[in-house]
Amino acid sequence: METYQPITPEIIEKLKAITGPSYVKTDKDILLQYQTDYETDPRRFHLPEAAVIPANAEEISQIVKLANEYHFPITVRSGGTSLADGAIPVCGGLVLCMERLNKIIELNEEGMYMTVEAGVRTVDLQKEAKAHGLLYAGDPSSAESCMIGANLATNAGGLKAVRYGVTRHQVYCLEMVTPTGDIVECGRILKKCSTGYDLEQLIIGSEGTLGIITKVTVKLIPLPPYRFDVLAVYTDPRKALYMVPKLLKAGIDPTSVEYMDNSYVRDTADYCHYSDMPHYEDGIYVIITVETFREDELDSKMESVCTICEESGAVDVLEADERIWNMRRNVQTSCEMVSKVFLTDDVVVPVHKIASTIEKIMEIGEDYPFQVKINAHIGDGNLHIVLCKMDMSDEEWETSVEKFHQQVYAYAYSVGGRLAGEHGIGAKKLKYMEEFTPKGELAIMKTIKRAMDPNNILNPGKLIDA
Amino acid sequence: METYQPITPEIIEKLKAITGPSYVKTDKDILLQYQTDYETDPRRFHLPEAAVIPANAEEISQIVKLANEYHFPITVRSGGTSLADGAIPVCGGLVLCMERLNKIIELNEEGMYMTVEAGVRTVDLQKEAKAHGLLYAGDPSSAESCMIGANLATNAGGLKAVRYGVTRHQVYCLEMVTPTGDIVECGRILKKCSTGYDLEQLIIGSEGTLGIITKVTVKLIPLPPYRFDVLAVYTDPRKALYMVPKLLKAGIDPTSVEYMDNSYVRDTADYCHYSDMPHYEDGIYVIITVETFREDELDSKMESVCTICEESGAVDVLEADERIWNMRRNVQTSCEMVSKVFLTDDVVVPVHKIASTIEKIMEIGEDYPFQVKINAHIGDGNLHIVLCKMDMSDEEWETSVEKFHQQVYAYAYSVGGRLAGEHGIGAKKLKYMEEFTPKGELAIMKTIKRAMDPNNILNPGKLIDA
Repeated sequence: METYQPITPEIIEKLKAITGPSYVKTDKDILLQYQTDYETDPRRFHLPEAAVIPANAEEISQIVKLANEYHFPITVRSGGTSLADGAIPVCGGLVLCMERLNKIIELNEEGMYMTVEAGVRTVDLQKEAKAHGLLYAGDPSSAESCMIGANLATNAGGLKAVRYGVTRHQVYCLEMVTPTGDIVECGRILKKCSTGYDLEQLIIGSEGTLGIITKVTVKLIPLPPYRFDVLAVYTDPRKALYMVPKLLKAGIDPTSVEYMDNSYVRDTADYCHYSDMPHYEDGIYVIITVETFREDELDSKMESVCTICEESGAVDVLEADERIWNMRRNVQTSCEMVSKVFLTDDVVVPVHKIASTIEKIMEIGEDYPFQVKINAHIGDGNLHIVLCKMDMSDEEWETSVEKFHQQVYAYAYSVGGRLAGEHGIGAKKLKYMEEFTPKGELAIMKTIKRAMDPNNILNPGKLIDA
Repeated sequence: METYQPITPEIIEKLKAITGPSYVKTDKDILLQYQTDYETDPRRFHLPEAAVIPANAEEISQIVKLANEYHFPITVRSGGTSLADGAIPVCGGLVLCMERLNKIIELNEEGMYMTVEAGVRTVDLQKEAKAHGLLYAGDPSSAESCMIGANLATNAGGLKAVRYGVTRHQVYCLEMVTPTGDIVECGRILKKCSTGYDLEQLIIGSEGTLGIITKVTVKLIPLPPYRFDVLAVYTDPRKALYMVPKLLKAGIDPTSVEYMDNSYVRDTADYCHYSDMPHYEDGIYVIITVETFREDELDSKMESVCTICEESGAVDVLEADERIWNMRRNVQTSCEMVSKVFLTDDVVVPVHKIASTIEKIMEIGEDYPFQVKINAHIGDGNLHIVLCKMDMSDEEWETSVEKFHQQVYAYAYSVGGRLAGEHGIGAKKLKYMEEFTPKGELAIMKTIKRAMDPNNILNPGKLIDA
């Protein structure tokens, strides 16, 4: 691991000169809020030496230049909702908070795009688009709290990726501060472009290691006025899973295809205090959403969806009302009821491998003492495996989790999968990234990182061990 | 410009040992076919010192290692259809032909993807998909001759980009030989991925400067069974152009929106010997294609399209039959009839700026002695400006073209446009790339190029002056 210079009083003074003194924090009480994100295991917390809350790209540029001059690391913090320890300053140094870059700069209805500062909350961007009859199609589950810049940094996915793709597909261009402190715009509001390297796509998903995103221009699309939500209940997971390819090939273009195993059906129903959910005891829920621009199209697509679900062995095909979506939204929080400590994973595999992967993981899980729960965006191959520690000892938990991960990741890679579909690698999976990424790919990533960030200033200890 | 070592008899022997002697060409008669691509100006031709036709990635890897050892440049040649001098070996050295990498490796119907070698012709890939009831949505106008690897290298666009996006949106993953000779796979068959830098998107559009693409896995999608083609005839270009935003916001999701100015209507009708085309004398043609999965959806969308065209001032709204598409396909060749020498350009601007851009270009063109013709993919902001030399002197032509380009490119950049929407920069626009690209962006591109290709072996003299 790189050795950095501590943040001295001299650096603090220079930071204060850049942002004004009130935006530089050194009190331990204040710094404590930056020691973690959605991480709940205190052994993974890390206190920064200082935090700074800049107002704009110019200030960030000066801060990054200072970091290069004095050689201290910078960890960017947006909504603090990372599930991969992405906002934890694992090498100490400075935490840089994006909350003041919160302006919506322009919504252009004719051009169907919106330009915002990177610290705008995703939900506010969604609302602004909707108020103009348009849709911003990015929709991570944490939309209420997360910020758009961080959605780009992790290439966030979410619930609507089956139809609309992930964050990288919603972006026209971005402004960033490079690892050496320049302010650079990458990309333009263009549908086609063959004019040099696609830098914006390189930056998207780079988890703050190649640049600090300060401004984003996203695509907006016409908002479909019609929508239906189907709940297909299965009692055999195979039947639920093998329905997916049929659905995807039928020209229905669903917005969401979500899967909750029976443990989630029971736990989320309990958590939400819903007492009469269908097949509470043995049901597996698949929620399918379809959106259209025409009512007749809606009707005929709904008919197709119902037929496909019935023919594939669903025991019940119902309308998915608000309660069902509320259960879906609470999959994560319902785990707190089951186990104080639990671990969320984010493996992704090719869509046509998701059925066999879920089967395999359940089979692997049988050998372990913890509870294995699965919910999945089955329309895009992304599954969240939750392990509940229950009353296991710390030692047994650690050993089991490590062994389980090795088995699951090895299987995922054997079918062409990857470690993370939407949460990113962060600090949490860094060692697995080094272990499982094919050498040639990893070597190119490190070559790029070292060339662009020669002093290893931006977000060290995350994504790759440069 | 970099100084390279000449290709010596010693190098030729080593090349022959790699591919077998019959696949290494040094006869001048044979090399002449590699001195140009779609370039017609002999002053831009350049003879390679040798050509090699490898069989696979392993041979290419050895050749690239040899090039690094002896320091000679490699220019990759696929279908030779570049409109940007992309396949011309401007620094001499070796031309590497991809034609033997022509195998379709796998079409997976369940997973909806196809893996092919990079030298497969795009049309063969399209046909193979169709034979399985699936669609490969990439469709450059040169599909009959060009190869899929080169489609990736230039991020080719084409006729269906309005609905389906450009080549970069059709690709799951690729295999490449890096500039230092390693064989590396980038990307996987995943709908979501947040596991490291998106190397495949960096390689796509890099015009052979960051790697030689040897294998490609593309997305296939369900093939829509229904389709209609509307020809909207306008006599006022403004009315035609200002119709586009309305069409794009109506939730119709058109596949193509093509524009031919009246000079093209007349020239292509003459070229095709069609004597009774509507509004031959004063018509501007807009062709709109819509594809659907349901017949009733087709009907209601056709109605919407016709209404939008009529309300926007079309003088005629007809079915676009095969003759209209034949005219569209011959826009380029019809120019040969008008002028022996002509120049095709490929500027791209934000879609909502295309109307004002076309107006501005016509206005600029009035000051010049050459004929300015415009056809455009107006649904995606990409316009092809053709300049016809007619009987101008070489000197006047050169000076006028240069001055015209400066004006047009400056205008395009002022509205957020770029030099090339789908043809790439190649050697043709290298100097404009240096001139018009914002410094920060260009610096990052060069940093990446130098880090990945330290000996500047791959395609020097193209895209950027590294």
